[in-house]
Amino acid sequence: MAEKSSNTQVPVNFGILVFPTFQALDAFGTLDILNMLARDFPMNLSIIARTLDPVSTKQHNPSFNPSGSIFGQSVVPTHDFTNAPPLDVLLIPGGFGLAAIGGYGLPADDGLDHLIEFVKRTYPSLKYVLTVCSGSWIAARAGILDGRRATSNKHSWAQTKIVGPNVNWVSHARWVVDGNIWTSSGVSAGMDSALAFVQEVYGADQAKKIAAELEYERHEDPSWDPFAKMYNLPKEGI
Amino acid sequence: MAEKSSNTQVPVNFGILVFPTFQALDAFGTLDILNMLARDFPMNLSIIARTLDPVSTKQHNPSFNPSGSIFGQSVVPTHDFTNAPPLDVLLIPGGFGLAAIGGYGLPADDGLDHLIEFVKRTYPSLKYVLTVCSGSWIAARAGILDGRRATSNKHSWAQTKIVGPNVNWVSHARWVVDGNIWTSSGVSAGMDSALAFVQEVYGADQAKKIAAELEYERHEDPSWDPFAKMYNLPKEGI
Repeated sequence: MAEKSSNTQVPVNFGILVFPTFQALDAFGTLDILNMLARDFPMNLSIIARTLDPVSTKQHNPSFNPSGSIFGQSVVPTHDFTNAPPLDVLLIPGGFGLAAIGGYGLPADDGLDHLIEFVKRTYPSLKYVLTVCSGSWIAARAGILDGRRATSNKHSWAQTKIVGPNVNWVSHARWVVDGNIWTSSGVSAGMDSALAFVQEVYGADQAKKIAAELEYERHEDPSWDPFAKMYNLPKEGI
Repeated sequence: MAEKSSNTQVPVNFGILVFPTFQALDAFGTLDILNMLARDFPMNLSIIARTLDPVSTKQHNPSFNPSGSIFGQSVVPTHDFTNAPPLDVLLIPGGFGLAAIGGYGLPADDGLDHLIEFVKRTYPSLKYVLTVCSGSWIAARAGILDGRRATSNKHSWAQTKIVGPNVNWVSHARWVVDGNIWTSSGVSAGMDSALAFVQEVYGADQAKKIAAELEYERHEDPSWDPFAKMYNLPKEGI
């Protein structure tokens, strides 16, 4: 039933990091593609946070919530940084909660230090890392992007370069693959990157089937990036 | 700061219904657009379920989970059907959890009866209803689509017609608006419908800004629907 690529040992254990004020669609764009994939392949998901308390997308920093809205969604972690199981694939979303590591001059958040430490510690045993949007800042801060090609969202490009001074940041890209690290551009770009990942690891038919079920018109060209132009980014990175 | 349309009284109180095995992206595609909007407009979100226990996207029906995966995400409700506050806008996602009302011949789920009753009861006081994918089945079962134009996902079109025999189902449509009810096609179509809703109620600049921030290439034509063709649907509905 399942359409497999020639890759005989496909990943089984997936984990996603969540932190206060993560971007909902960074996480759930990729996750829902994997939710569909999980019908055809045996897969486990761990949702990993600093504690097991629910983690909200709500804007915790008042400067990002000038209207005073009370608007957010809380997800329930299954593991914390001390008891997460061995993983094959680690997903890292971005979001306003990363502003502290993004050069906005806010004080460092201890919770993010733990999260970065977790990435640093687990990377050697992972098969793949997938970041979405400013999730690449976490990967950069963990040092796993040093000397690699990577991308990030186009709205905060200046901050991205500050966070990862040793990364070969590619400004015009929907997503970038270097070794076993897949980095995507902003928010919805994560869906195109995730579908390309599914195609690479599980086969083109599987990616096509999921896109059709989600009625999603995917972009299959990683160099497609009208948003880099929209934000007037110079061509950087190769 | 905020780009307002001529609509002087914009909606403030939003609610979303969740139920076991809702489709993650049905909910979070629309929600993340509203998360962005909530920075510029004072908005509240209630997440409404049968009880306050976390609600998972996990496949609860083994027939939809042949691989035996343990893969899902749980969100935390803020209200149940008895204590939800008055709402301006109600969001209704779809998902495999609705199979029981979708003509698959499964036994009726008491939890869904309560949910349908909630829609029936609250509709008269709502300003807008937005359904995504098979979320339109809930609206149809609640009777609020009777005699109206509406759409749903293209994969389960036959079931859709069984669930809503008195609805004017439009087979070739990314989304359909009839009165104050917005129904979208499958999963990711909800994002285009939500952005069109933002454009209608909060102005075109706001919709454009959010799409750019999410780096989402939206479809602005409600009749754009390559998936109706892909699933070989006859042209039905007007």
